[in-house]
Amino acid sequence: MTKNDGCKIVIVGGVAGGASAATRARRMNEHADIILLEKDSDVSFANCGLPYHIGGEIEDRSELVVASAEFLAKRFRIDVRTRHEAVSIDRQKKRVEVLRRDSGERIWIDYDKLILAPGASPIHPPITGADASNVLTLRNLDDMDRIKAIVDAQATRKAVVVGAGYIGLEMVEQLIHRSIETSLVELQPQVLPLLDAEMAAPIASEALSKGVSLFLGRGITEIITDDDNRATAVILGDGTQIETDLVVLGIGVRPNVSLAVDAGLELGATGGILTNDYMQTADPDIYAVGDAAEYVYGPTGKRMRIALAGPANRAGRLAGQHAATGKSDPMPAVQGTSVVRVFGCSAASTGMTRSFAKRFDINAKSVTVIAKSHAGYYPGAETMTLKLVYDPQTEKILGAQAVGGEGVDKRIDVIATAMQFGGTVRQLTGVDLCYAPPFGSAKDPVHMAAFAACNQMDGVGDFSEFDADLSSKQVVDVRTCDEISKAPLAGVENPISIPVDELRIRISELDLAKETVVACGVGVRGHVACCILRQNGFQVENLTGGATLRNLAAIHSTP
Amino acid sequence: MTKNDGCKIVIVGGVAGGASAATRARRMNEHADIILLEKDSDVSFANCGLPYHIGGEIEDRSELVVASAEFLAKRFRIDVRTRHEAVSIDRQKKRVEVLRRDSGERIWIDYDKLILAPGASPIHPPITGADASNVLTLRNLDDMDRIKAIVDAQATRKAVVVGAGYIGLEMVEQLIHRSIETSLVELQPQVLPLLDAEMAAPIASEALSKGVSLFLGRGITEIITDDDNRATAVILGDGTQIETDLVVLGIGVRPNVSLAVDAGLELGATGGILTNDYMQTADPDIYAVGDAAEYVYGPTGKRMRIALAGPANRAGRLAGQHAATGKSDPMPAVQGTSVVRVFGCSAASTGMTRSFAKRFDINAKSVTVIAKSHAGYYPGAETMTLKLVYDPQTEKILGAQAVGGEGVDKRIDVIATAMQFGGTVRQLTGVDLCYAPPFGSAKDPVHMAAFAACNQMDGVGDFSEFDADLSSKQVVDVRTCDEISKAPLAGVENPISIPVDELRIRISELDLAKETVVACGVGVRGHVACCILRQNGFQVENLTGGATLRNLAAIHSTP
Repeated sequence: MTKNDGCKIVIVGGVAGGASAATRARRMNEHADIILLEKDSDVSFANCGLPYHIGGEIEDRSELVVASAEFLAKRFRIDVRTRHEAVSIDRQKKRVEVLRRDSGERIWIDYDKLILAPGASPIHPPITGADASNVLTLRNLDDMDRIKAIVDAQATRKAVVVGAGYIGLEMVEQLIHRSIETSLVELQPQVLPLLDAEMAAPIASEALSKGVSLFLGRGITEIITDDDNRATAVILGDGTQIETDLVVLGIGVRPNVSLAVDAGLELGATGGILTNDYMQTADPDIYAVGDAAEYVYGPTGKRMRIALAGPANRAGRLAGQHAATGKSDPMPAVQGTSVVRVFGCSAASTGMTRSFAKRFDINAKSVTVIAKSHAGYYPGAETMTLKLVYDPQTEKILGAQAVGGEGVDKRIDVIATAMQFGGTVRQLTGVDLCYAPPFGSAKDPVHMAAFAACNQMDGVGDFSEFDADLSSKQVVDVRTCDEISKAPLAGVENPISIPVDELRIRISELDLAKETVVACGVGVRGHVACCILRQNGFQVENLTGGATLRNLAAIHSTP
Repeated sequence: MTKNDGCKIVIVGGVAGGASAATRARRMNEHADIILLEKDSDVSFANCGLPYHIGGEIEDRSELVVASAEFLAKRFRIDVRTRHEAVSIDRQKKRVEVLRRDSGERIWIDYDKLILAPGASPIHPPITGADASNVLTLRNLDDMDRIKAIVDAQATRKAVVVGAGYIGLEMVEQLIHRSIETSLVELQPQVLPLLDAEMAAPIASEALSKGVSLFLGRGITEIITDDDNRATAVILGDGTQIETDLVVLGIGVRPNVSLAVDAGLELGATGGILTNDYMQTADPDIYAVGDAAEYVYGPTGKRMRIALAGPANRAGRLAGQHAATGKSDPMPAVQGTSVVRVFGCSAASTGMTRSFAKRFDINAKSVTVIAKSHAGYYPGAETMTLKLVYDPQTEKILGAQAVGGEGVDKRIDVIATAMQFGGTVRQLTGVDLCYAPPFGSAKDPVHMAAFAACNQMDGVGDFSEFDADLSSKQVVDVRTCDEISKAPLAGVENPISIPVDELRIRISELDLAKETVVACGVGVRGHVACCILRQNGFQVENLTGGATLRNLAAIHSTP
């Protein structure tokens, strides 16, 4: 391996990507000078753990410090400089101008290799009151301390969380744990706006059941403050006013790219710093990783920003090695895999959603299965809804989403792994997964989804969308009468009720000339019914996810 | 799709593979005649759930019936005939001779397509007393009822389980749940003989901690019976006598291939019925699936028996479709992925072990990492040991094993999926997995193992075997003195103690001329130390899994 012995590596940003780069660079190169600049007070802290300390699940604050500056110095001989903000890059002279935030002094630091890991900054909306002292974002330990102090205060009873993305939902969960009356406001008409609406609906249900007040489809337009510049209420677009003692903003982040832009480094199509396969920017001596950089997105093959901890850590490690030795493996494509737990319900996803495909005019089909987390006969099995999005031409998996209890992370990880290899839904039918009753089923939810997709492609199991307009169709509900009376199919006037086991003998009750949609509880009996009807000449589709999915989505799809 | 309309499909064996074949055949072909023959009393029962009813975790016996004969008749129009044993095949006339076990009558049934799913039978050892009334195997509901009746009896206090494979261990767990004093006897010197010894050791530890008496490296040579032909004790190869009220045999199974052999169908190299990619035997009108058939084994590409429920179900489904329509996708390779839970500890594996590779002279290397099931700073993280076996030439993943608490199944499923696509360890570094503190880590154990393998291939992180003879090496223990005094490195006389953070300044204490092995707790600090030493000219290896793995394996590797 080529060693860049004695080279000087400067890293801007000391959290996920930066800290990974620094430590890998050291392991690969004992003789490099490694300087880690961090504009805030802490390096290598557990960004993703912040809500859990506020909520008290992580009691000890020091648990959140993954590697302190002292530790990095001692074990890895890294020169860590906190509260040092890189303010400009002189590419000609290969040096960085650094502001010492405590003294206000500016110094220049030379580099041979520069790694930019500046992260992203939370967006503050440009509305009245947004600068109130109790209107906060959550990005670092200081932010966390401020929020926690307010939550800890006796007088704090109510909170508004703005933004129902991952951080917003995690905050909501933790605030409820702390017995704070919590409202969640989201501009989009659903929680988790990056997921397909019906897949996010169970998370909304779960939040509601835990006492969260949900305000979907409405943004905040104003924050009312008192004389001490403390927010006392938020006002929503529809005029709703919510009193509060705390506002936590989780409406998104903006990548910190100004340092790169000012240095003349190119940005990509999504506004992140453009990088090559080795995380090098347009200047080969300057790398960029983390939330400010772009990665190759697996499902499209195009570069885009993907602000997640996993890719940041792996890209940091890779850039650290490349800077330290002059070589590394190329950075693999990133699928954008993520997961969030909201009380007893979790949602995970990888790759693109059906909505993403529609928005960008990508040819995609999807299937949804509702299945058990492990063998149904073994106690404790939980229901999960798993949606698979694929390209019907190439058969390639484009993405997946899962929502439910136990094991949604596992199924999404399996599918994300298949996607990493460019896998097709047909190949996915063959993955050989662990099975014992406490862990899964001989036919896992992953298999069931892949089977359904193949059935759909092979023309033996067409699915209608869960929210299809069924008014012109002949709708056959093949559940038992008892089931139907408990949960009639949402938005269908007079479905024909024929239990699946009577379908063969009662088939003459149906009109062969009509386009037919079959519905059952979750889609399994519907598939059997479809097979019977299709082979008897019917043009028939199976309502994906059955009445369960349609009815759930119907409850939550409109605010 | 070509329909074999009106064709007559006869299926021999009505559990996992057979029942899957029957139902898929029906869904694909409404107009076929489908006859399902089962020699025992029940079809489509949850084979893998049997121990849990004995132990009381699954209270309701009827939960174990996945699909009754009545259900299969009603929903799928399948002609189910239980206690009907296929005794011969007349391939010329395409008919099966069937023994009606209740009447003793023999009849012939014609077929167009015949699917053999006869399963396997538990092995009874040819020793004195093996036919005692309380010496039982566990394969079907009748077996389960017999064992449960004995366990339920007041007088039953003690049990001996013979064979520490999956069924044996699951039985042990459930017997302990029932407060039965349980001994586990295994001929091999370890539990889970199909795993590498050190990976099985934590399972042995767990069993011991729950009060199981372990007798490893010894088989049973005799069963002592009383006048009522009831076993009262077993005698082991070393003369040990264990008193007992019940003996459960879990020493393996023999595939039921006699029907196929008598019909002149070819067997494969491992004694299962030879099949092609569509599960057809040498006779294209006869298929074979399940425990009696052979599959392509992913890691070697060769056909072998793989007696697991997952492949049986998938192959059954595929054969059912092929028989019913004349076409299907080919059967994918099987990785042999499996999992077992033993009290609070689980072991999962996929592909080949290091021992398998050694036995069959396959070029393989391995790395082992010890990591947390989710972010260490989030409560409840459990330790897992993950071993990755790979081909250093092609870099292909050959197998993996994981043992620990939460999440071992997930990691093995991810690696099994990568293997399904012929993935390399280098590609495995790039899989994009879900991360949030309750679910994983930004660098998942899977990544850590893949990183370690790449380091090893790239010559920046050679690992010694956990059980290497270190007597001629310079061994450096880089843990703190406190850690070392609590758990000295097994089998090493006088390791040199230099905490990793002091290594750079104390490097002159080491002899550059000596082959050096570095040890720490689990291998992480050891890797840092190795990097330092290597770059200072040492020839150095990192003890894989650190003192933890070596010491654990040392305790349990000898009986």
